[in-house]
Amino acid sequence: MNINKEMLLRPLTKYFLNFQSRNISGKAIVFSNYGNPSEVLQLHNYNIETNPLKPILVKFLASPINPSDINQIEGVYPEKPSFTKDLGTDFPCSVAGNEGVVEIIENMDKKSEFKPGKRAIMKNPGFGTWRTHAIADPNDLLFLDIDDVTAIQAATLSVNPCTAYCLLKNFYKLKPGDYFIQNGANSHVGQAAIQFGRIWGLNSINIIRNRSNIDKLKSFLYDLGATHVITDIELANKEFMEELVKKCCGESGIPLGLNCVGGKSILDLARYIKPNGHIVTYGAMSRQPLLMSSGILIFKNVHLHGFWITKYNRTYPEKRLKILNNILTYIKNKSFKDLLCDKVYLDKSLQDLIYMKTFKNALENKERKQVLVFN
Amino acid sequence: MNINKEMLLRPLTKYFLNFQSRNISGKAIVFSNYGNPSEVLQLHNYNIETNPLKPILVKFLASPINPSDINQIEGVYPEKPSFTKDLGTDFPCSVAGNEGVVEIIENMDKKSEFKPGKRAIMKNPGFGTWRTHAIADPNDLLFLDIDDVTAIQAATLSVNPCTAYCLLKNFYKLKPGDYFIQNGANSHVGQAAIQFGRIWGLNSINIIRNRSNIDKLKSFLYDLGATHVITDIELANKEFMEELVKKCCGESGIPLGLNCVGGKSILDLARYIKPNGHIVTYGAMSRQPLLMSSGILIFKNVHLHGFWITKYNRTYPEKRLKILNNILTYIKNKSFKDLLCDKVYLDKSLQDLIYMKTFKNALENKERKQVLVFN
Repeated sequence: MNINKEMLLRPLTKYFLNFQSRNISGKAIVFSNYGNPSEVLQLHNYNIETNPLKPILVKFLASPINPSDINQIEGVYPEKPSFTKDLGTDFPCSVAGNEGVVEIIENMDKKSEFKPGKRAIMKNPGFGTWRTHAIADPNDLLFLDIDDVTAIQAATLSVNPCTAYCLLKNFYKLKPGDYFIQNGANSHVGQAAIQFGRIWGLNSINIIRNRSNIDKLKSFLYDLGATHVITDIELANKEFMEELVKKCCGESGIPLGLNCVGGKSILDLARYIKPNGHIVTYGAMSRQPLLMSSGILIFKNVHLHGFWITKYNRTYPEKRLKILNNILTYIKNKSFKDLLCDKVYLDKSLQDLIYMKTFKNALENKERKQVLVFN
Repeated sequence: MNINKEMLLRPLTKYFLNFQSRNISGKAIVFSNYGNPSEVLQLHNYNIETNPLKPILVKFLASPINPSDINQIEGVYPEKPSFTKDLGTDFPCSVAGNEGVVEIIENMDKKSEFKPGKRAIMKNPGFGTWRTHAIADPNDLLFLDIDDVTAIQAATLSVNPCTAYCLLKNFYKLKPGDYFIQNGANSHVGQAAIQFGRIWGLNSINIIRNRSNIDKLKSFLYDLGATHVITDIELANKEFMEELVKKCCGESGIPLGLNCVGGKSILDLARYIKPNGHIVTYGAMSRQPLLMSSGILIFKNVHLHGFWITKYNRTYPEKRLKILNNILTYIKNKSFKDLLCDKVYLDKSLQDLIYMKTFKNALENKERKQVLVFN
């Protein structure tokens, strides 16, 4: 429902006679200053009710903790959230989190097609998804056919799988049988890229950090469809890599590299990119500047790019929708398997201290993706 | 003149009855092993005479010392020279140097259009240009209309000015009034880019290392057509740079950056590239790997490329020829001014020790481009 100026000049009640509002209590993870998330994030209890401008009351089902959420709280992310007292905080606050899935509890606009029970994901980042309840405008929400997928699948659909999809499609025209190489292959983007690779007939060389129990992770990635899974130590071993890449790609090398680590990892990976090939950076997990050899750029004519899903979605909303629907099809026909994650149950009935402790444990878990489940 | 198999099967004299050959003594700077140029380069005296396969006797007029020549001697350049005993050395040797201008002394093929007195530059790298005399096939040489330009202009035409030309033309469609930013702006590529900028109506922000007597160099670059000349220290000063770039380009930033330094310099430069802009690397004077911010790639969608004139020339020989002729036109109509260099006179009558000392002084001079002048 759009509110135009003329409407606002008249008593709103005239237009919303058939609306009913419900006051509801919720919990949100908020911050009022940028900083270390473990320090600046706080639990806030609030009551909200719908209003004509935000007529939809939603409850969050699940919201992941993505690296960009952390960067945003630290203040080093270009998307700055708005700080308001809308939730009745003493200081202007922002609700953390950008991705998630909601279910409509109530819609003041009874004529709307978006009825209670319907699910949606966030149309844009910056909504604040680490909370139990919110009021929303229809334009805040993206309604997809997600009734047949799990809340976790829906909650983790729009950032990482879409990024992986674009990384493989937008920078180099890979043909079936072609290889790509990626570091941070156990990230959600990495897991999704492996799967799109399998679905589209592509081969992948996947780099993960060496660790104890590595066989379990390798086995998981092979099950997703990885062609090769190697460690960062193997990546730095030229003899090992030259043999592997030669076996996979002959003398030429790999046409596409995906980097979410940075530092020396992208340089190690770049050595095996073929002449005129491309490397796309979409993350910086090592928090180190990229290292790159001038010679690889000059003599091999390798190109370096970056990819940011937020910018892509804003620029190409229709393409985004098509990608989301394609991925949903893959999920529904079981060709796209669940991404590895821990479900973090934030039960509303938990005492505040325990609620926050549960959340903070998730925040500090760097082993695998943490998805907050609100119930 | 092309020699085909049939010709080689018959007595060559039949085809070359009108040929005469002259034995000539020359001096060459050679190396038999890769390594530090000061250590591995040696002076070699030799006699050569033309033969039906290499019927053209040329004398070198001038040859520059380019960074890529040094890299080649060090063994870190992808173009590997051939090591032969052709010049009568005890060990297989290669003559150093890749760029230069020659004058034809004699052509065994009297029917050829390439007569004594005609000048040419090298068609390809790897010929070995740091020497007084050589025998050549017509295909070794590129005949341009260079009679009206100086030997220095012709000798330094094909590597650096052509690189600058391509850097400004091939990566971003700069419109008159647009800015580009470059480090190593006092390099020959830098000086040429400044001038093409002036000729084509482009503005340039030029970064040079801080030094004593910097005003003289700044003044020289302004005379070439630089819009701004700043030091690496000013580049690292965010406040200074933000003000300058805002004044030049408004809020958006600079669309194109040229990098021949690497290390931190490209990162400092990258901060002022506008969203969707490009940075092209064509050198690595700092001998440090490039440092790059993931955020600049991801959030600003800046693209990094490399450029290698050798590859370009091989791929687009006709475009190369057009570029060379365009630059020659600029030189002849005085819009392209002489590049800063030291002429290093290697007089054939010099004693070997003094000859080599003169050469090595040039080799170690990092202040400005050194051009060997043979007489």
